[in-house]
Amino acid sequence: MASYDVVDLIRSKRDGGVLADEEIRWLIDAYTRGDVGDEQMSALAMAIFFRGLDARELPTWTRAMIDTGERLDFSGLSRPTADKHSTGGVGDKITLPLAPLVAACGVAVPQLSGRGLGHTGGTLDKLEAIPGWRAMLSNEEMLAQLEDVGAVICGAGSGLAPADKKLYALRDVTGTVEAIPLIASSIMSKKIAEGTGALVLDVKTGAGAFMKTLDASRELARTMVGLGAAAGVTTVALVTDMSAPLGRSAGNAVEVAESVEVLAGGGPADVVELTLALASEMLAAAAVDADPAAALASGRAMDVWRRMIAAQGGDPDAPLPGARHTETVRAEADGWIASMDAMAVGLAAWRLGAGRARKEDPVQAAAGVTWAASVGERVRAGDVLFTLHTDTPERIERARAALEGAVTISPEPASRGPVVLERID
Amino acid sequence: MASYDVVDLIRSKRDGGVLADEEIRWLIDAYTRGDVGDEQMSALAMAIFFRGLDARELPTWTRAMIDTGERLDFSGLSRPTADKHSTGGVGDKITLPLAPLVAACGVAVPQLSGRGLGHTGGTLDKLEAIPGWRAMLSNEEMLAQLEDVGAVICGAGSGLAPADKKLYALRDVTGTVEAIPLIASSIMSKKIAEGTGALVLDVKTGAGAFMKTLDASRELARTMVGLGAAAGVTTVALVTDMSAPLGRSAGNAVEVAESVEVLAGGGPADVVELTLALASEMLAAAAVDADPAAALASGRAMDVWRRMIAAQGGDPDAPLPGARHTETVRAEADGWIASMDAMAVGLAAWRLGAGRARKEDPVQAAAGVTWAASVGERVRAGDVLFTLHTDTPERIERARAALEGAVTISPEPASRGPVVLERID
Repeated sequence: MASYDVVDLIRSKRDGGVLADEEIRWLIDAYTRGDVGDEQMSALAMAIFFRGLDARELPTWTRAMIDTGERLDFSGLSRPTADKHSTGGVGDKITLPLAPLVAACGVAVPQLSGRGLGHTGGTLDKLEAIPGWRAMLSNEEMLAQLEDVGAVICGAGSGLAPADKKLYALRDVTGTVEAIPLIASSIMSKKIAEGTGALVLDVKTGAGAFMKTLDASRELARTMVGLGAAAGVTTVALVTDMSAPLGRSAGNAVEVAESVEVLAGGGPADVVELTLALASEMLAAAAVDADPAAALASGRAMDVWRRMIAAQGGDPDAPLPGARHTETVRAEADGWIASMDAMAVGLAAWRLGAGRARKEDPVQAAAGVTWAASVGERVRAGDVLFTLHTDTPERIERARAALEGAVTISPEPASRGPVVLERID
Repeated sequence: MASYDVVDLIRSKRDGGVLADEEIRWLIDAYTRGDVGDEQMSALAMAIFFRGLDARELPTWTRAMIDTGERLDFSGLSRPTADKHSTGGVGDKITLPLAPLVAACGVAVPQLSGRGLGHTGGTLDKLEAIPGWRAMLSNEEMLAQLEDVGAVICGAGSGLAPADKKLYALRDVTGTVEAIPLIASSIMSKKIAEGTGALVLDVKTGAGAFMKTLDASRELARTMVGLGAAAGVTTVALVTDMSAPLGRSAGNAVEVAESVEVLAGGGPADVVELTLALASEMLAAAAVDADPAAALASGRAMDVWRRMIAAQGGDPDAPLPGARHTETVRAEADGWIASMDAMAVGLAAWRLGAGRARKEDPVQAAAGVTWAASVGERVRAGDVLFTLHTDTPERIERARAALEGAVTISPEPASRGPVVLERID
């Protein structure tokens, strides 16, 4: 491979130039090897924040990150595969009911997930609230479970796109996370390396999401859909509302409990709606004709859930851990809930111990926030609105402070808008 | 001192925000201590490239860099002080005749200088061509020489603005050198820390300069003049032409020889013109009424030169080293020299061994380029135009290649424009 002067490449991008394919491949490879330094890559990432990566640079960048690691291969399975990725929202437990539901319809779901950092929580952290459940599987175990059960939610091995792992950690400490090309290539390099045949993206938008505006969310969705198509993965995105938190819970065990309600045929309407919408997209993308609502109603999705949890050592019948301390926040007025600040709720759950400040921090399985009513519902002054759950009561005051002003109660009836705002393919 | 989240500060600048004084002071201090990482500072430097530093941020930034180190104090001298800084040009040996000339007029000149990196050469490298001369003096030696001789050209100790030293090295490898606020604060932090009472800036503009356009040079000049004024240093800038190289030589010993010619009352007209212009500004800034042309013509400047060189161990009468190999480049046509590419000449001198590629490289005292005629002068086909000087003949071919097309010869008479283009105070 040719060698380049990294300072020339940084200056070229800084001044609005377009990097050649060979230059990008060399950059990513040299950075992964350590020949390009963190201080150089962070300057380049900041230049990309301002200058972007064009329609030729971005697929090359993404492919170069994939090529630094291994790729999984599900082509030997007897079923097609479909995967879902969410950009992260408060109360977003959708993966939990979705994976078994789609598997119950005949599509294998290899759901490689992460842990939470910051206010949105992580799927693995939630499932680890189930006694005995383990997140890390070997590739062989994962394949066997996919063939046998049809769904697996587990941690991604470090072998997938190591360049992304290194670059993401760098961006996190250098103020360069919020660059759409870098976000898109980070997500898509991992998802493409995972080897799924079809991919449905849940791009959150609004105050509780990483992308605050519909325009930015749409741009991210389009960019990722384009990268999927360029890599031969059937990719569809739904842009969904994250102005208010999803469902009635944010945390770990509390979100597992809500997911089980959905699988049992109940659960909050918005969670059910989004789960079914994403399931329909995954089935369509995998070219399988099936009715997810029927699979949910019949209990077949719950059967797959139980087998999926058990296959990873979890006991689906074990009681979920309860918090040692709970406190409540009550409604201050009569009326209809006009808005609920997703970021505030996420922050409260995080402060109660559901999330972590640093990668190495533990999380509390029982920590979180639940709420008795959500946007559009009627409350009376003095009703319990939020319940705060934690094992460490000294955390409660700061969580309570986060919820200050988080809910507006209107004397007029209010309603929540649709969860799915746009579909992009 | 308060502590801040560096990622918040980077994101604030990235998004067009203004950093508070306390934030800037903390940043520079934490970076110097190592609590803010290189990868964070380089991302911030790139954000500053795009967003700038405003009229309040920049003096604070500069002052914070000064405050990381020691400050010299010349207030005990019996004479006022004035200093000159050039942003760097090809053949720019002006400091050599200028410092003794201004000293001969009654102003002390503490000229702390650097070594060359890249195509423009360094003042200390040039003077080290004089047998016995040494660049590094203690603060006490420098003060004594200033009082006794009136002029000193020496290396800056590492105690001045250590934050700048660290930041400059980082910018050099991260493509963030070309940000006007960072250039201005880098130069001015050192000059202000040096404790001069008056400062004259020679801001080069054109193809052979760091700043290629008059607009950019003017902006840099204005920014630096403003920083000087904010720090209580009388500061004036001349924007001067660097489309063609200065004088008739670029290198080390060859530039010393040309400087001695100027001090002896001869030398190329452009070097004499710029030396006198800068000397007048320095005297005016130091509020000393004297005629530099008379000091040059009378030989008083030469006397100070000889004492200045001798005071630092150099022998002003020793022959300068000559190169082991010389080769010539001849004119290809009859006519007038319409242009001479300063960058090409600088690159040729650098390739012959006059400059260094890395800080730790040695330079050749005798290496360089001399030319028999410059812009506006008449030549005949076959006349010697350039002479290449080096101790290592294998360097000649690449130097010759750099000079390919560097001179245009016109059948019509041509002239060189003025050297001093603008004055900014």
